[in-house]
Amino acid sequence: MLPRTGHIPRATIQRLAVYLEVLEKLHDEGLTVISSEPLAKACGVNASQIRKDLTYFGEFGVRGVGYNIANLMRSIAEALGADRPWNCVLVGVGKLGKALLNHKDFSLRSYHIIGAFDSDPEKIGEEVAGVTVQNVHCLKECSEALNARIGIITTPPAWAQQVAEQLVEAGIKGILNFVPSRIFTPDDVYVEYVDFFHNLYALSFNITSSQSR
Amino acid sequence: MLPRTGHIPRATIQRLAVYLEVLEKLHDEGLTVISSEPLAKACGVNASQIRKDLTYFGEFGVRGVGYNIANLMRSIAEALGADRPWNCVLVGVGKLGKALLNHKDFSLRSYHIIGAFDSDPEKIGEEVAGVTVQNVHCLKECSEALNARIGIITTPPAWAQQVAEQLVEAGIKGILNFVPSRIFTPDDVYVEYVDFFHNLYALSFNITSSQSR
Repeated sequence: MLPRTGHIPRATIQRLAVYLEVLEKLHDEGLTVISSEPLAKACGVNASQIRKDLTYFGEFGVRGVGYNIANLMRSIAEALGADRPWNCVLVGVGKLGKALLNHKDFSLRSYHIIGAFDSDPEKIGEEVAGVTVQNVHCLKECSEALNARIGIITTPPAWAQQVAEQLVEAGIKGILNFVPSRIFTPDDVYVEYVDFFHNLYALSFNITSSQSR
Repeated sequence: MLPRTGHIPRATIQRLAVYLEVLEKLHDEGLTVISSEPLAKACGVNASQIRKDLTYFGEFGVRGVGYNIANLMRSIAEALGADRPWNCVLVGVGKLGKALLNHKDFSLRSYHIIGAFDSDPEKIGEEVAGVTVQNVHCLKECSEALNARIGIITTPPAWAQQVAEQLVEAGIKGILNFVPSRIFTPDDVYVEYVDFFHNLYALSFNITSSQSR
């Protein structure tokens, strides 16, 4: 059940994603019920945090019994919007773009990459993982026709902003940006940056500052 | 200059990484000085936020002139620990592992992957991007010998925890975990998870909740 306000802090969304990942694993192992303490331990958070997060969207464990794993998975997936299919288009069919098109977990998680675009004549017409690469000039029309809601950008940095604008024109509401370049969109179009160098910086920052203490 | 306390909130570290990325681009374009307003705009944050973040580690712009870009880049890189070389080892030389070993930006940013390990006899001895894949049995001894500080895990999920423990034994202080599986380490060993499906969940969550408002 989604909270009425629709507002959940970003850190909570990230924890919900972790809970879902851990619950899926427990479910695959054949577990049906779990109480908050062992679930918290498996997720690497404390039990009061998990109870608070789950209460947030209306899930309460049964005292002495715990949470029904299948129900909890369903509730979290629903809260994350991951219980329904999402049509995605990808722009920039280089090495990374191809790897993502071939990544089976997208479809498994109901994010379907059903369109791919590039400006390179060598790539246009090529079929990658069942998707035919189309001319980027067709981005707006084709994305609209595909009823795409999420755009994935894997172009060279210089093209990211222009591609983002075309995606917005095509009615895309969320952009997963793999390009290490800021992009600017209207307030109602969400952008997520994927850049593991930021994670490396966080590591080197933490190691450095723990040693200077 | 690092702050005396060594404590900077995580969100600040992520913003510092963005500032560094944007400043590097401006520097490459030949700019030498920038005031907080245009810098904030290019970074997608507001100017008071950027001033606050920079004051945090002792950087002050000159009123009416702004920040010296080269100095600011140096200060941020120093704060992030990105101004010195980091020896890294990678465990799990599959598709992703190979792609990371071949990724030139690691060395460009002074994160040097100087060791690679796998358990597959077919892979051991293979040379990938100038690094010879070694038997994972040698992980502890070899990582110590290489004076590695950061470990990168790209194994199948079932191996992640065991590999993490071996990395900790080898004196590794930070782990970049590409495996969608929680790992547990002592408090003084930092873990960063890289999983872009969490970013996709954040997008579908935000799109879903903005439409239900």
